[in-house]
Amino acid sequence: MNEQWDKIIIGIDPGTNVMGYGLLGIKEKKPQLIAMGVIKLNRMDDHYMRLHHIFERVTGLINSYLPDEMAIEAPFFGVNVQSMLKLGRAQGVAMAAALNHEIPITEYEPRKIKMAITGNGAASKEQVASMLQRTLKIDKDEMPEFLDATDALAAALCHFYESIKPIPSGGGAKSWKAFVAKNPDRVKK
Amino acid sequence: MNEQWDKIIIGIDPGTNVMGYGLLGIKEKKPQLIAMGVIKLNRMDDHYMRLHHIFERVTGLINSYLPDEMAIEAPFFGVNVQSMLKLGRAQGVAMAAALNHEIPITEYEPRKIKMAITGNGAASKEQVASMLQRTLKIDKDEMPEFLDATDALAAALCHFYESIKPIPSGGGAKSWKAFVAKNPDRVKK
Repeated sequence: MNEQWDKIIIGIDPGTNVMGYGLLGIKEKKPQLIAMGVIKLNRMDDHYMRLHHIFERVTGLINSYLPDEMAIEAPFFGVNVQSMLKLGRAQGVAMAAALNHEIPITEYEPRKIKMAITGNGAASKEQVASMLQRTLKIDKDEMPEFLDATDALAAALCHFYESIKPIPSGGGAKSWKAFVAKNPDRVKK
Repeated sequence: MNEQWDKIIIGIDPGTNVMGYGLLGIKEKKPQLIAMGVIKLNRMDDHYMRLHHIFERVTGLINSYLPDEMAIEAPFFGVNVQSMLKLGRAQGVAMAAALNHEIPITEYEPRKIKMAITGNGAASKEQVASMLQRTLKIDKDEMPEFLDATDALAAALCHFYESIKPIPSGGGAKSWKAFVAKNPDRVKK
């Protein structure tokens, strides 16, 4: 446990090209931004180098900030099995870094995170970023270039909201089939 | 480097219910069985507990046997995106254990492994196990109950064969679409 904070949550938005992260400190039930950024992977050609890099960087973040919990944005849709396998690997490697430090993981589907942050499960990434900026009183200059970072921070904030007051699920679709039928535009090609 | 062996290869057959492993020692270009077995996951309900268990057990195997290389059986097919995501996570966690120890990973699709071991890319698991038993002169009493173990050992032996003499690819299907079209019966439902 960190002395300055009651709890630190690390949010992760895993991807195979860019991975976002956001660290949220909780003090007396108030969330505050500690850090956010992206881990760029698209310069690396080799799949294993990317996975290694994810593991090392997430481990580095854990060792630097000593988070108590991890929240991960985890889409459970996609029609391309190859990309789902790759996404699963990227998620698995990031999760292993947390599991290696006995940090509990909670995953949230994107729609649930958007709902928790903006009240709208179909909000755009820009709307999520804008709401985060206001909620956490982040200076405009501090806002990141890449929305993967704010997406990750949103996962952390969603997890904080869940910990103080459970909110109803944004989606409601219980199966992959039902989800696709309901959200044809949200399926990764 | 281990003194008894020129090289040790760990083979992994990742799954979300049972994970197989096999350790092969190479001495003067001859492969020999060191150990094989399974990590049973199906008693654990929680997905994260399973992933944690995979990471811990694979890390344990690495610390015990100090393998130089990892070979992983990696199917790249499946029509159920959910199961592919889970498989990807299981693979990712096992890979992270290797990457954490700077162990290079090579993946082989099942057909290629079967071809390398038996000369038939469509061989059954039993045929693979039987050929392994003869090739590595394994005592019948030592043969494992679960074929996930021999599948993992087969991945390690395939990797050894590759290292001494490249063999032609068993499949030939370059894309997922071509693979499914060619092997409709081998698609996971």
